[in-house]
Amino acid sequence: MAQQPYDLPLSELEKYKPSLTRQPDFDAFWERSLRELAGTPLKYELAPRDYPARKVRLYKIVYAGFRGANVQGWLAMPDGDGPFPGLMLFHGYNWAMEGQIHEVVNWALHGYAAMLMLCRGQQGESVDNTVYSHGAHAGWMSKGILSEDEYYYRGVYMDAVRGLEVLASLDKVDRARIGVTGGSQGGALTLAAAALSDIPVVAAADHPYLAHFERAIDIAPAGPYHELNEFFRRNGDPEIETRAKRTLSYFDVMNLAPRIRCRTWVSIGLVDTITPPSTVFAAYNHLQCDKSIAVFRYFGHEYIPRAHEEKLRLLMETLRP
Amino acid sequence: MAQQPYDLPLSELEKYKPSLTRQPDFDAFWERSLRELAGTPLKYELAPRDYPARKVRLYKIVYAGFRGANVQGWLAMPDGDGPFPGLMLFHGYNWAMEGQIHEVVNWALHGYAAMLMLCRGQQGESVDNTVYSHGAHAGWMSKGILSEDEYYYRGVYMDAVRGLEVLASLDKVDRARIGVTGGSQGGALTLAAAALSDIPVVAAADHPYLAHFERAIDIAPAGPYHELNEFFRRNGDPEIETRAKRTLSYFDVMNLAPRIRCRTWVSIGLVDTITPPSTVFAAYNHLQCDKSIAVFRYFGHEYIPRAHEEKLRLLMETLRP
Amino acid sequence: MAQQPYDLPLSELEKYKPSLTRQPDFDAFWERSLRELAGTPLKYELAPRDYPARKVRLYKIVYAGFRGANVQGWLAMPDGDGPFPGLMLFHGYNWAMEGQIHEVVNWALHGYAAMLMLCRGQQGESVDNTVYSHGAHAGWMSKGILSEDEYYYRGVYMDAVRGLEVLASLDKVDRARIGVTGGSQGGALTLAAAALSDIPVVAAADHPYLAHFERAIDIAPAGPYHELNEFFRRNGDPEIETRAKRTLSYFDVMNLAPRIRCRTWVSIGLVDTITPPSTVFAAYNHLQCDKSIAVFRYFGHEYIPRAHEEKLRLLMETLRP
Amino acid sequence: MAQQPYDLPLSELEKYKPSLTRQPDFDAFWERSLRELAGTPLKYELAPRDYPARKVRLYKIVYAGFRGANVQGWLAMPDGDGPFPGLMLFHGYNWAMEGQIHEVVNWALHGYAAMLMLCRGQQGESVDNTVYSHGAHAGWMSKGILSEDEYYYRGVYMDAVRGLEVLASLDKVDRARIGVTGGSQGGALTLAAAALSDIPVVAAADHPYLAHFERAIDIAPAGPYHELNEFFRRNGDPEIETRAKRTLSYFDVMNLAPRIRCRTWVSIGLVDTITPPSTVFAAYNHLQCDKSIAVFRYFGHEYIPRAHEEKLRLLMETLRP
Amino acid sequence: MAQQPYDLPLSELEKYKPSLTRQPDFDAFWERSLRELAGTPLKYELAPRDYPARKVRLYKIVYAGFRGANVQGWLAMPDGDGPFPGLMLFHGYNWAMEGQIHEVVNWALHGYAAMLMLCRGQQGESVDNTVYSHGAHAGWMSKGILSEDEYYYRGVYMDAVRGLEVLASLDKVDRARIGVTGGSQGGALTLAAAALSDIPVVAAADHPYLAHFERAIDIAPAGPYHELNEFFRRNGDPEIETRAKRTLSYFDVMNLAPRIRCRTWVSIGLVDTITPPSTVFAAYNHLQCDKSIAVFRYFGHEYIPRAHEEKLRLLMETLRP
Amino acid sequence: MAQQPYDLPLSELEKYKPSLTRQPDFDAFWERSLRELAGTPLKYELAPRDYPARKVRLYKIVYAGFRGANVQGWLAMPDGDGPFPGLMLFHGYNWAMEGQIHEVVNWALHGYAAMLMLCRGQQGESVDNTVYSHGAHAGWMSKGILSEDEYYYRGVYMDAVRGLEVLASLDKVDRARIGVTGGSQGGALTLAAAALSDIPVVAAADHPYLAHFERAIDIAPAGPYHELNEFFRRNGDPEIETRAKRTLSYFDVMNLAPRIRCRTWVSIGLVDTITPPSTVFAAYNHLQCDKSIAVFRYFGHEYIPRAHEEKLRLLMETLRP
Repeated sequence: MAQQPYDLPLSELEKYKPSLTRQPDFDAFWERSLRELAGTPLKYELAPRDYPARKVRLYKIVYAGFRGANVQGWLAMPDGDGPFPGLMLFHGYNWAMEGQIHEVVNWALHGYAAMLMLCRGQQGESVDNTVYSHGAHAGWMSKGILSEDEYYYRGVYMDAVRGLEVLASLDKVDRARIGVTGGSQGGALTLAAAALSDIPVVAAADHPYLAHFERAIDIAPAGPYHELNEFFRRNGDPEIETRAKRTLSYFDVMNLAPRIRCRTWVSIGLVDTITPPSTVFAAYNHLQCDKSIAVFRYFGHEYIPRAHEEKLRLLMETLRP
Repeated sequence: MAQQPYDLPLSELEKYKPSLTRQPDFDAFWERSLRELAGTPLKYELAPRDYPARKVRLYKIVYAGFRGANVQGWLAMPDGDGPFPGLMLFHGYNWAMEGQIHEVVNWALHGYAAMLMLCRGQQGESVDNTVYSHGAHAGWMSKGILSEDEYYYRGVYMDAVRGLEVLASLDKVDRARIGVTGGSQGGALTLAAAALSDIPVVAAADHPYLAHFERAIDIAPAGPYHELNEFFRRNGDPEIETRAKRTLSYFDVMNLAPRIRCRTWVSIGLVDTITPPSTVFAAYNHLQCDKSIAVFRYFGHEYIPRAHEEKLRLLMETLRP
Repeated sequence: MAQQPYDLPLSELEKYKPSLTRQPDFDAFWERSLRELAGTPLKYELAPRDYPARKVRLYKIVYAGFRGANVQGWLAMPDGDGPFPGLMLFHGYNWAMEGQIHEVVNWALHGYAAMLMLCRGQQGESVDNTVYSHGAHAGWMSKGILSEDEYYYRGVYMDAVRGLEVLASLDKVDRARIGVTGGSQGGALTLAAAALSDIPVVAAADHPYLAHFERAIDIAPAGPYHELNEFFRRNGDPEIETRAKRTLSYFDVMNLAPRIRCRTWVSIGLVDTITPPSTVFAAYNHLQCDKSIAVFRYFGHEYIPRAHEEKLRLLMETLRP
Repeated sequence: MAQQPYDLPLSELEKYKPSLTRQPDFDAFWERSLRELAGTPLKYELAPRDYPARKVRLYKIVYAGFRGANVQGWLAMPDGDGPFPGLMLFHGYNWAMEGQIHEVVNWALHGYAAMLMLCRGQQGESVDNTVYSHGAHAGWMSKGILSEDEYYYRGVYMDAVRGLEVLASLDKVDRARIGVTGGSQGGALTLAAAALSDIPVVAAADHPYLAHFERAIDIAPAGPYHELNEFFRRNGDPEIETRAKRTLSYFDVMNLAPRIRCRTWVSIGLVDTITPPSTVFAAYNHLQCDKSIAVFRYFGHEYIPRAHEEKLRLLMETLRP
Repeated sequence: MAQQPYDLPLSELEKYKPSLTRQPDFDAFWERSLRELAGTPLKYELAPRDYPARKVRLYKIVYAGFRGANVQGWLAMPDGDGPFPGLMLFHGYNWAMEGQIHEVVNWALHGYAAMLMLCRGQQGESVDNTVYSHGAHAGWMSKGILSEDEYYYRGVYMDAVRGLEVLASLDKVDRARIGVTGGSQGGALTLAAAALSDIPVVAAADHPYLAHFERAIDIAPAGPYHELNEFFRRNGDPEIETRAKRTLSYFDVMNLAPRIRCRTWVSIGLVDTITPPSTVFAAYNHLQCDKSIAVFRYFGHEYIPRAHEEKLRLLMETLRP
Repeated sequence: MAQQPYDLPLSELEKYKPSLTRQPDFDAFWERSLRELAGTPLKYELAPRDYPARKVRLYKIVYAGFRGANVQGWLAMPDGDGPFPGLMLFHGYNWAMEGQIHEVVNWALHGYAAMLMLCRGQQGESVDNTVYSHGAHAGWMSKGILSEDEYYYRGVYMDAVRGLEVLASLDKVDRARIGVTGGSQGGALTLAAAALSDIPVVAAADHPYLAHFERAIDIAPAGPYHELNEFFRRNGDPEIETRAKRTLSYFDVMNLAPRIRCRTWVSIGLVDTITPPSTVFAAYNHLQCDKSIAVFRYFGHEYIPRAHEEKLRLLMETLRP
C-alpha cells in the first residue's frame, strides 16, 4: 500500500517548514550538556582486530562517553602515515549487525580514518549508563522521555560529539578534514553531531530519523516512531504526552538544524514509510548552512545506490581522501 | 497458518519432559541472589489513588526491590479489617497498560488484598537499576544476557520475591493465605516467585513465558522469544550464543520448576504461538508439587474465559477470601 | 497502515453532523414496533449458575423477547437486599465468548444488578425467530435487509428494550437507577435502547457500531460493515442497494440519537478502523441530551483503560451503587 | 506459505481411509429425513428471466424445499423439444454472486437442462425456515449444530434432493440422464445428493467441502471450517464439542460416501487450504461406486481448467447432451 | 485497506480528462508500424483440437504476427455454415491458464467465431521475436522501454491487429460483424486494436490496463504497473525515466483512445487496485466514439457478473450472432 | 512463520545427498555448448566510467557472450601495474540495482581486478539474444524450458564462462589467480562457472540458487522457484512438466557440482526461504573438490556479515591480492 507516495507531494515538501518547537532554554540545555561532557576527560583505548584485508588496519575502540559511559566503536585506518581525513559513522536504530565492520573497513579503503560509534545499549560494549526513573516501551524511544535531562538520546548525542573529539585527536587524522555520516538513526546522529560539535566540515545524512516528532507520530505508517504511540497508549495521562513531547523537542533534529554550520547533505526516498519525507524536509528546510538534498522518487527506507554515489562524491570533494 | 495445532500433539505434550539444563551452581546462584535481596531492608510506601468504586481502596505502592531499585505497584484492598488473603499479580511482557489498575481492583472486589508489581523498566516508576555492560536488541530479553549475574530477569525475579514479602508484611494481609498469578511473562514470574519464595501457598500461571528457551528459540512462530534470535543474528560469535544460553538456563522456569512446593496450576492454549505448548509442558512436567494443567484446544496466547473460572475457583478454595 | 488517524481530523469530527437520513415514518415505525413488543407479556425465568465468587449470585436468565423469541442473558446480583441500581449490558457483534459471565459478575461486585443480553442468534439460547425471506451474506448485517419490518436488528433492538423492562421489574432493582452500556454492537444497542426505552437514566456507549451506515460503507477499512459491501457485490441490482440503505436508515443510531433523553456518554479511539470515528461523531453530534464524548488519540477498536475509568465514574455518580 | 503441499504426500493420500464416524442411527436418520421430505408435495414455479443469449431460455425457478421452505434456483433450458439431459448445480459456501446465472446458461449452451439451487439463507429468495434453538458463530457452519435434527445442512441436503426431483419432473428433461455437480460446498452437496437420491447417474464434485470434519478442524489452514473452531472457542464446554461433532457426523460426506451408487468423479488440488486434500481423499476412499479422482499438484481451492475439461468429458460421455 | 474507494470520487472520475501525452509523431509512428505489419503476408494454420462439446469446433490457430512472429491462438467455431460474427479475445497480463480454451468455446456456443490471441512470450507458442537491446525487470512492462520502436507492446498491438485480419479472413466469418473484447491487458489490447484497426465494429474493454501510465505509476497500490517503478529503481538515471515515459506515451491507450471510431464499452470497479479507476476514466474520457462505461462501486480487478451481462447484451445487439 | 528452521535439521542436511538427475548426455551437452562458445571469438570493449574514488578505475565493459550476445559488465581495476588477482562477480536474480557498481569498486579497493557480469536480459545492455519458441511465466525461470538447447540459463552459463575468459585475458590480471563469487542466482553462476571453466582457482557461493529443482519446487516457501510452479499451473500437460524437469536437470548445479575441481566454499542460512537449505546441501554434498560450507542458524536469504568475512579471508588466502 505504501509503495506509492503517501506523504505530501514533492512541490509541497520543498516548501514544508513548520515552526520550530524549541523550548526557551533549548540552546541553554545543549550548552549545559556540552559543558558536562567537557568535564569528562577524553580517554580511549584501541585494540587491533584481525581482518582479512590489506592496506587497512581495524581496531576495536573504546572511549569514555557522556558521564563516563563505556562507548565502543570500530576504527579502520588506511595503511600509511596520513594525515587522513576522518569520517565518523553512525548506525541505524536497533541495529549494527556485527558492528558493521565491513562498512567501516570499506570507508578506510576509500582513504578515510573511519570510526563507527556503537550506540549505547544497542550494540557491542557500549553502555547505557542512565538509570531511568520510569518504565518505557520496549526499545529506546521512550526511555527517560519525561525529562530532557534523562532522555536516552541525550547520552547518545553527547557520545557522538565525544566520538568526533576522539577521532579528531588521533595522530594520523587531519582534524580539519572530518565528516560525519549515517542513515536513519545514524542520519539523525549525523545532524545532531553537526549541530552540537564544530569538528565536522561536512555532514551527510541518509533518511534521518528523530525529526519533526509531532508529525512523525501522526503520519509514519511503520517503524520505531510507533514506540511513542505505544507509550502514549500505555500511559494515557495527557500531561504525560505533553511532557514527553516537550522532552522530544530538545532532541528533534528539526530544532537542532539551524545550529549546523558545516556543509550538509541529506537524502530521502519519497516512499519511505519509516522516516516520512515530510519529517525529513521539515528538518532540511530549517538548515541555514550550505546544503543540498537528494530526493529519490522510487525508494523507501533503504540503501539507495545513487545516493551512495552522491555521498561519495561529496566526501571526496570536501574531505579529499 | 498457526490457527491449527502446530506443536506436538497433546498426547506427546503430556509426556514431554526434556532434561533440565541447570548449571552445577544453579541452586547456589539463586541462594546467593536471595541472600543479596535479604540484605536490602523491606521498605515501601503507599499513596492512595482515587478510584471510582465502593468497598475497595486503591494505592500506588512503591517498594525497594533488588539492589534497592524503586519498584512500583498497585495495591487494592477490600474495605474492612481483614485479615484478607493476599494475591500477588504479575503482568505480561512489554505491557501493563495504565498499570492494569482495573484488574487489580477487580481482584480486591473478589476479596483479595491484590498487588500488581510493575516490572522494572517496563512500566510506571519501576526502575531497572542495572547498568548493562553490553548492548542488546530492543526489549529486555537480551539485556545482560552474557552473565547470569547481570541478566535482566535476575532483578525482576528478586523484585517479585520482595513484592511477596511486602504483601505478606501488610497489616490486614493473612500471610498464610497468599497466592501468585499472572499470564505470559506474568506466568513466568508466578512460577519463579513460587520457586524462589516460600510465601505463596498457591501459584496460578497462564501460558507462562521464559520456559525451555532452547526449544522456544527454535519453535515459537512469533513473539518476544524472537528477540533472542535477533540478538544471535547481530552477534554471530558462537561463543556468545553458548554464553547466552548458559545464562538463560538460570532463568528458565523449567529449571526452577522442581523447586516449587506450593499448589500450582498452569493453563495453556494449543494454538499459542507466543509461548508454544511444548515449552509450557516442559516446565509443567518438571513440577514436583501438587499440580494441574488446564489445556485449551482452540485458544492461543489470549484471555481464556474458562481458564479464568478455573483459576477463580482454585484461589477461592485455596485462599478462602 | 491504519495505525495513524485515517479519518477526519478531530477538529472536523467535532463538527461533523451530516443530515439525518430518516424516512418520513421513522418514528411511526418505532412506535409500531414498541406497540408490538408491548403485546408480548413480560416473562422471564432465572436459574442459578454456580460461580466461584463471594458476595454475588449469578443466574442464567431467559426472557421472552420480540415476538416471543427466547432470549438468554446472564444476571449477577450483589448479595444483600438492595435495592440495587441496575446495569443492562450488551455485547459486541459475533461475540460474547462464554457469555462474558466474568464481566457480568465484575459489575455486580461493583454493586450493580448487572444483566447481559445475549443477542438473538449470536450466542447462548437466544433465538432469532425471524424466518428471512431472502438470502444474506454470512453474518447478521444483511439478514432481512430489504425491509425494515424484517431486518435482523429490529428484533435485537426490541429484545434490548424488553431486557431493560425485565431488569427494571426485578425485586431488588431500583427502577429509577438503571443504566445501559456496551461496546461496538453493544454500544449501538446502548444508544438504541436509550432512544427506544425511557427506563435508562444513563447510557455509556463505547465505540458504537451501526452508526451512519452510508459513510461506514465507504470508509471503514475493516470489520463487519464490509458485510454490506459484500451483499451489494453479490446482489448488484441498484434497486436492492437503494432498498437496503432505506432499511438501514431505520436502524442507524445516528437517526435514533435525537430521541435519547438520558445522560449519554460515548467513547471512541481515533485509530478505530471498525467503527470509524466520523461515524461515531455523526451519531454523537445528533444527540440532544446531556452528553459527553471521550476521545482517545492512540486507540483503536479495543478496550481502553482510561475510558473504562471514565465510565465507572459516570455510573458511580449517576447510579450511586 | 500454502503454495507448497502441506498435507499428506500423495502416496499416503491415496491410501488415507480413516474409520467412518457414523452413529448407529446414521442411515435411519437419513431415511427419516427423506420420508419427511417426501411428505412435502413437489411444487415449483417458473418465471422467465430475460438473458442476452440465443438458443437458451433462462428461468427463475422457485420450489418447495424441506419443510416447505421457499427455495430459489435458476434454470436454463436449451431451445428445442428435448428431451435434454439434466444437470443439477450447487454453489460454494457464502457465495453465488448474482446467482451465477452465466454458468447456468453456459451449461445449457452445452445442451443440458441446467438448474442451480441457491442454498437456503445464502442467496436469492431461498429461505432458511429453521428457527435455531441456540446462537451460532456468524455463518452457517454452527447453526443448529447441537442436534442432527436441527443442523443447518439437514435442510440444505434435503433441498438438494428435492431440487433433483424437480429437475427430473420437468417435461423436457430425460429423467434417466441427470447429473449433479458443484465445487466446494457445491461439491459436498453433489456427493450428498448422490448419496441421498437415486436420480443422478453421475456426480462430479470439485474440492468437496463438509468432509471428515474431525481432521478438517485440525488441519485446514483457512476457510469456513474455522467457524467450527470459533464456535468451540466461544462455547468451551467439552460436552458441547462432543455433541457438535456427533451432529456433524451425520452430515460428513465421508460417512455418506458409501451410499453413493452412481458414477462419481472428484477433483482436488494438493495445495488446497480450504478443503485439505486429506479430507477429500478420506471421503473419496470410502466411495464404493465406479469412481475416479483428478489430482492437481499445483492448484489450490480454485477453478482448475484441466479439471473442468475432465468434467465436461465425463458428463458428455455419461449424459450424452 | 483498499476495499473502499481510494481513488477519485465518481463525480470527479466522470470529468477526469488529463491532457494527452502524445509525441508529435504519435500517429506517424503507428502508421509506420501498420505499414510494416502490412508487409508481412497474412498467413495462418489451423489444427483441430479435440474438445468435449457438441456444436462447436475448436482449433489451435497459428499465424504470422509482427515481423513474422509465430503467434498462437485458439479458435472456436460454431457448427454450421455461417457466416458467423467474429469475436477477437485478448487475455490478461502474465496469464492465459491453459489458453483459456473454455472461455473461447463458450463464446462459440453463444454463436461467435471466437478467437483468442495468446500474447507473444506470455503463453503457448506465441513467440516474442524481438531481441531487446537492454535488460529489464522480470515481466514484460519494461522490455525495450527505451525506444518506441523496440518496446514489447509494439509487437503485441500489431499482433492484435493482425489477429483481427486473420479472423476477418476466415471463410465462415462475416467481416462486417467483428468485435473485440478482453479484460485488463486484454482490455488494453481491445482498445488498442480498435484504435489501430478498422475491422472491429464494437469494442468491449473490462478494466483496461496500459492507460495513463504517469498516474498509474503514482497511484496503483498493486499489480504490474509496479514493474515500471521497479525498473526506475534499478536504473535511476533521470534521463532513463524520461525516455521510458516517452516510449510509454506511444502505447498509452489514453493516447490511442481518440483514434477509436467503433462503438466502445468499458467497465471498471471503483475498488480496482490494479487498474485504478482514474486511469481507466482518463482513457474513457478521451474516447470520441459512441461509448458507454459501466461502473461498479463494490468491485475490484475481478470478474463482475453484471458487467458480463452488459457485455453479452452489447455484443448481441451489435454483432447479432 | 519461516523465521524458524523449516527444512531438514542440520544433522540431516549434512548427509542429504539425493541421487543426481543427470541425463545420459549431460556432459556431452555441456561439451557441445562450450564448443559452440569457443566458436565465438573473444571480444570486448572498455569505456571508463567516472567514479568518486581514488586508487581504482571503473569501466563499463561489453563483451560478446554466447552466440555473440552483447553482454555488459562493470570492471574495476586497482591503480598500479598489477598483475592483480581477478574476481568474477555474479548478481542475484531479477536484480543488480544500478549495476551494483559500488560492490565492484569495493572489491577493487581490496586489490582485485573485479568484474561483474550483468545477466542477459536482466540489467544494463546485456542482451538475451534467444528468441524463445514458446511463452513463459513472467521472469526468466521458464523461458525456453522445454528444451535444454533453448533454456535461458544456457546462455547465461556460457556468458559466465566467457566473462571469466575475458577477465583472464586482461593485461594486468594474473590468470592463475582468478576467483568467482556471487549470491543466490550469483551463487548458482559461481558454481556453474567453476564447473564449466577451468579458469577459477576458487569459488565462493552464497546461498546458491538453481540447485536440486525437484525439491525446491516442493519446499521453497517463497521466491522465484515459484515461477516454475506457476508455469506448471498454466500448462498442466504432465508431459510438459516431464520435459521441463528434464531440461532443468542440465542446469541444476547439483548435477554440475561433481565437475568442479577448484577450492569451493558455500554459505547458507537455515531460515533461508528462497533457496532452502536442503537444496543447497544437495549440491554441496555432491562436490568432490576441496570444499567447505558455512552454516548460519539465524539467517535467511540475506547478507550475512560473518559469511562475508569468511569469504574475504578465503579469497585473501587463495588469491593473495
